[in-house]
Amino acid sequence: MARRGEFELIETLFAPLAEGFPGALGLKDDAALLDPPAGRSVVVTADALVAGVHFRPADPPDLIARKLVRVNLSDLAAMGAEPWAMVLTAAFPDSVDESWITRFAEGLGADGRSFGLPLIGGDTVATPGPATFSLTAFGLVEQGLALRRSGARPGDGLYVTGTLGDGALGMGVLTGRLALTPEESAAVAYLVERYHVPRPRLAVGRGLVGLAHACVDVSDGLLQDLAHLCRCSGVGAEVWAERLPVSPAAARLATTRALRGEGAWLETILSGGDDYELLFSAPPGMEKALARLAVAADTAITAVGTVVAGDSVVVMNREGMIVPFSRWGYQHFGPGE
Amino acid sequence: MARRGEFELIETLFAPLAEGFPGALGLKDDAALLDPPAGRSVVVTADALVAGVHFRPADPPDLIARKLVRVNLSDLAAMGAEPWAMVLTAAFPDSVDESWITRFAEGLGADGRSFGLPLIGGDTVATPGPATFSLTAFGLVEQGLALRRSGARPGDGLYVTGTLGDGALGMGVLTGRLALTPEESAAVAYLVERYHVPRPRLAVGRGLVGLAHACVDVSDGLLQDLAHLCRCSGVGAEVWAERLPVSPAAARLATTRALRGEGAWLETILSGGDDYELLFSAPPGMEKALARLAVAADTAITAVGTVVAGDSVVVMNREGMIVPFSRWGYQHFGPGE
Repeated sequence: MARRGEFELIETLFAPLAEGFPGALGLKDDAALLDPPAGRSVVVTADALVAGVHFRPADPPDLIARKLVRVNLSDLAAMGAEPWAMVLTAAFPDSVDESWITRFAEGLGADGRSFGLPLIGGDTVATPGPATFSLTAFGLVEQGLALRRSGARPGDGLYVTGTLGDGALGMGVLTGRLALTPEESAAVAYLVERYHVPRPRLAVGRGLVGLAHACVDVSDGLLQDLAHLCRCSGVGAEVWAERLPVSPAAARLATTRALRGEGAWLETILSGGDDYELLFSAPPGMEKALARLAVAADTAITAVGTVVAGDSVVVMNREGMIVPFSRWGYQHFGPGE
Repeated sequence: MARRGEFELIETLFAPLAEGFPGALGLKDDAALLDPPAGRSVVVTADALVAGVHFRPADPPDLIARKLVRVNLSDLAAMGAEPWAMVLTAAFPDSVDESWITRFAEGLGADGRSFGLPLIGGDTVATPGPATFSLTAFGLVEQGLALRRSGARPGDGLYVTGTLGDGALGMGVLTGRLALTPEESAAVAYLVERYHVPRPRLAVGRGLVGLAHACVDVSDGLLQDLAHLCRCSGVGAEVWAERLPVSPAAARLATTRALRGEGAWLETILSGGDDYELLFSAPPGMEKALARLAVAADTAITAVGTVVAGDSVVVMNREGMIVPFSRWGYQHFGPGE
């Protein structure tokens, strides 16, 4: 495929994304310079996406770039940080031509601008394998006030933003695992959009600084990420199955067909992954503050359980019985054989 | 291959590399926290290495990790920064087992410790393609004093550290492109070692802060990186072919056989890439200070040319004639077809 060299691509497609951040040095130097404002810590996170693993090679390149940005922003949100800058390394296979890379850069720039995340450095290389992207994102948070996974205490309420399971259902639609009727097309479009373009909960994360005891972003499934939060905090948790927030689209798919039987349905909600919502604990008495934050951030915040002493994470049904689970969430490596 | 899950691998193999850096949060949180000391800027660089492109899949995994660390450190050196921390994203294929990953982590930890570069975050994912690594490295430099590519002025001397061409020759040996005699085995071992384990010139870089006008690391070949420095500075340059520093091992290979004809020999020195030396410009009158720095840093510093007005980069032979070149350096993407 016709494609210009590395330096020309960087200069024409990526250097414009550095505008407005002097420390990026126009992507022309060996490295970039970061000078955080006084009183702020730099929050650093990195996520990689691989074609055929985290996205489908035929996905629109602008949506791949936007998902790459947003999964990293979700980690910044979980720390209570505001977006600051990003560094990209991209390994492009021969099979992608310059128009593909151009559309990828457009997606990166569109979300970079809308979230205030200029591109300040990186590396582009060739690969004989699948397209592989690694993004390091930087945020800013008040020193000493970053949200952590480790502060949850027994008696805290457990809350999640938005709705759960949409991304996993969207992927099920895209892979053909979910068979669909024409009447379900609106629901399908919504779920697929949630899969391609997650919504990092930055405004909620910022609002939780000084309010939440512990916070994590739900990327590998609610149960698995809750287990991480509990382990870091030295606590257990009860989750109320019937309180889990579900979108109308997901509810429609669930109730009409496809995911018959409560077990499979609950498993997708609790363990499907690709949610990019925030899960946090907050002390009792915060309900009004959280309701105000939900309005201000235009994002649902739902109480879904409670933090308890011990180290068990259990899911309760409406009768107060423990629901057993075999699948706890998405792992990037399966267990060995 | 038997391999544990992602979280166990991180906890046992990678979390120990975070020790001593509280902001790494033990690799257990959504992100890491960076708090640069007052008066310092954070220098950020990122480089990716792909199996089959930047290293051979059969290379020892500890050496792959060490090269990954060192190519990034070379960028920090070029800015005059001291190492501070690193973030790794790693895409491992199924074909690498846990012992491979263990040795990779050992190499990462060995160089991380010796250079003072704890691992503070990252991501490990699976890939159906080649092993692909992306490292983001952080350094610290006095605010406003980072070395840049853009400060060279006509009349400056041009200098390089160490020797040129060793890494490219070492790769030639590894790929079998260079046929060798038994007597050359010592030279070969040296060149292969230089290819696998570059020597980032951190002490020289630190010493150049406030002394050099412009600096770049030579990773894509002297001529190409010099062209970048000249373009950023708005100047031209003359390089003296007979002054280029060459190791005894490279000289032996060159004079005995293999690279017959001055053209090919010079091209490998000037455009082979994989040098990871520093190329810098300094004003006249700095010769004594540079000689002292070379001794203090235990690193050769050689005058190889001069900065001139204009925008041409030319190589002169000992008769003062311009040597023509067809190959200017390594590009990660070839020109399109």
